[in-house]
Amino acid sequence: MDKLWRKNIRDIKPYVPGEQSKEKDIVKINANENPYPPSPMVQKAINDFNCGKLRFYPDANATEFKSAVADYYELEAENVFLGNGSDDVIALAFQAFFNGDKPIAFPDITYSFYPVWCRMFEIPFKTYPLGEDFRINAEDYKEENGGVVIPNPNAPTSIGEGREFIEKLLEYNRDAIVIIDEAYVDFGGYSSAELVEKYDNLLVTGSFSKSRSLAGMRIGFALGSKELIGVLEAVKNSYNSYTVSSISMAAGTAAINDREYFNKTVSMVIETRERVKAELEELGFKVLESQTNFLFATHGSYSMKDYFEWLKGQKVFIRYFNLPRIDNYVRITIGTNEEMNIFLAKTREYIDFIKQK
Amino acid sequence: MDKLWRKNIRDIKPYVPGEQSKEKDIVKINANENPYPPSPMVQKAINDFNCGKLRFYPDANATEFKSAVADYYELEAENVFLGNGSDDVIALAFQAFFNGDKPIAFPDITYSFYPVWCRMFEIPFKTYPLGEDFRINAEDYKEENGGVVIPNPNAPTSIGEGREFIEKLLEYNRDAIVIIDEAYVDFGGYSSAELVEKYDNLLVTGSFSKSRSLAGMRIGFALGSKELIGVLEAVKNSYNSYTVSSISMAAGTAAINDREYFNKTVSMVIETRERVKAELEELGFKVLESQTNFLFATHGSYSMKDYFEWLKGQKVFIRYFNLPRIDNYVRITIGTNEEMNIFLAKTREYIDFIKQK
Repeated sequence: MDKLWRKNIRDIKPYVPGEQSKEKDIVKINANENPYPPSPMVQKAINDFNCGKLRFYPDANATEFKSAVADYYELEAENVFLGNGSDDVIALAFQAFFNGDKPIAFPDITYSFYPVWCRMFEIPFKTYPLGEDFRINAEDYKEENGGVVIPNPNAPTSIGEGREFIEKLLEYNRDAIVIIDEAYVDFGGYSSAELVEKYDNLLVTGSFSKSRSLAGMRIGFALGSKELIGVLEAVKNSYNSYTVSSISMAAGTAAINDREYFNKTVSMVIETRERVKAELEELGFKVLESQTNFLFATHGSYSMKDYFEWLKGQKVFIRYFNLPRIDNYVRITIGTNEEMNIFLAKTREYIDFIKQK
Repeated sequence: MDKLWRKNIRDIKPYVPGEQSKEKDIVKINANENPYPPSPMVQKAINDFNCGKLRFYPDANATEFKSAVADYYELEAENVFLGNGSDDVIALAFQAFFNGDKPIAFPDITYSFYPVWCRMFEIPFKTYPLGEDFRINAEDYKEENGGVVIPNPNAPTSIGEGREFIEKLLEYNRDAIVIIDEAYVDFGGYSSAELVEKYDNLLVTGSFSKSRSLAGMRIGFALGSKELIGVLEAVKNSYNSYTVSSISMAAGTAAINDREYFNKTVSMVIETRERVKAELEELGFKVLESQTNFLFATHGSYSMKDYFEWLKGQKVFIRYFNLPRIDNYVRITIGTNEEMNIFLAKTREYIDFIKQK
């Protein structure tokens, strides 16, 4: 350690990039990506995009895009914050709203970035265990919290809660800011967007990556009272005033305005999900009730880790988490019907393979 | 203050968005934007872009784009970090590299975001005044610093320093990380990119917003030793693993590969700059030697604040900073020759107008 400058470096584990297979003929149902392309209106918006205007900075107020999002949720543009993916939005919200002395609260099994952001921003936190049925118990959150963050539906469990649950959580936490992370809500969950006008301490976050097939475009948003949104804008402007590119705004506006395509593709994902769930159950899997674009499943007779590894060898990529309580579960993203047929056929093959051993 | 949740909110001034005029016939030379569109190869990359792949997350390693940037600077892909605009990159670098007890150092007149980031991330800082000639004195930085950040060329002064100056700075600060912010370097400045292999505590940051006409696309980058880049990647991945969209990568790769267009448009800006500088000097302005796409100017006989306001009324938008030491200067971005002719004509009109009073 002769280099003294190293002492000023943030103490952080070096990053090892995740494996993103370049293989062409794989079934990639491991990243909760949408199997369908974005709306044809997005392709049109991009084809028609006049690159000449890229020489200018983006509209700092994102007027058109904010209005389109506000229209969709029947709110006003001042209730909308936009960011570079919903991770960007939630990370900013942690910095903006979780500055109390008391720990913030979230479930023990949840989105893996929450504890990472807490460590990054030195926010104390505590976790409450999900019930045996993997559901969040609203009563746990009655204690005084420095803030609350909950994905609804939760990930990777896929389970969503309704209005009654969310209102309980909000009533128990009138003195803290409550973030409901709705990355997956469009696949059948209950959206708290309608509660924004009732609770001024509620922030609802959303993503264009899943239900709008725009993971590659990086668009996330938050809905909240004008006061909360104003604070988020101020914190954003202490970092980087222009986080959403002009072309993302054009694509995002086109995507949210095409409700017909959105409804159609979301329904297709839900239909495939229910079929795959039923078929897995026939094969003896236990599959949690999903309101997302993925299934969370286990099997009494097989090691899910082995099953995951075996499928990988067969070019079917699903997701396995080697974490307490869920280390015999797998997460399966809903792909096209064709992809899911391959997945199901390979699953049957695996069961035969194990039985023959 | 009946709402207890307000106590957890970050103490920050509410953000008032800057005025971005929607008028069509203005001469907008106030934001250091490039007057020329991006390379036709960018338009082609975007027209040819297959939106179907937007359903996938971007390549986390940005392999192709990093390689293109590395090629340009004759470095390796592992020496390149990419972000959502250079503000995103520099803000992350502050968090990654300025964690010592000692204050970091930068000039008193410089990029206005440096003290904002320091306050945001609780980094102690000190500033050294520029000399009477608005140049940075390398000897000031001999003291022990927790880090150093300097724009080269500096903004809003437009003055650049050469290799000798940068090497002095690096030799004086072998125990700290030195960030050289090269947002404007392509317009005739000295780039420290060639020093990355010699000094492992050097981070050079750059932007596609100015010289590559991609302000609307949000692309920034950093060049540094593999160790420094590895830390930046780790910090980025504690926030948001996918900050650069797939379409930004395609546009950025196309832009950096079109060297001929880049050289041509940069030369045009420099040529216009030198002509405008000479004409302003003929009108009695004192104009600093610029290695950027803007001029920093004052006049012994006129109030620059009044001149700025008057030009605004004439639909010519330049920039004025009401700050100590530079409150009788204006910053003029180099536009097209036509735009600068209007600016110069209006400037002559202003002088006549004042003389007649």
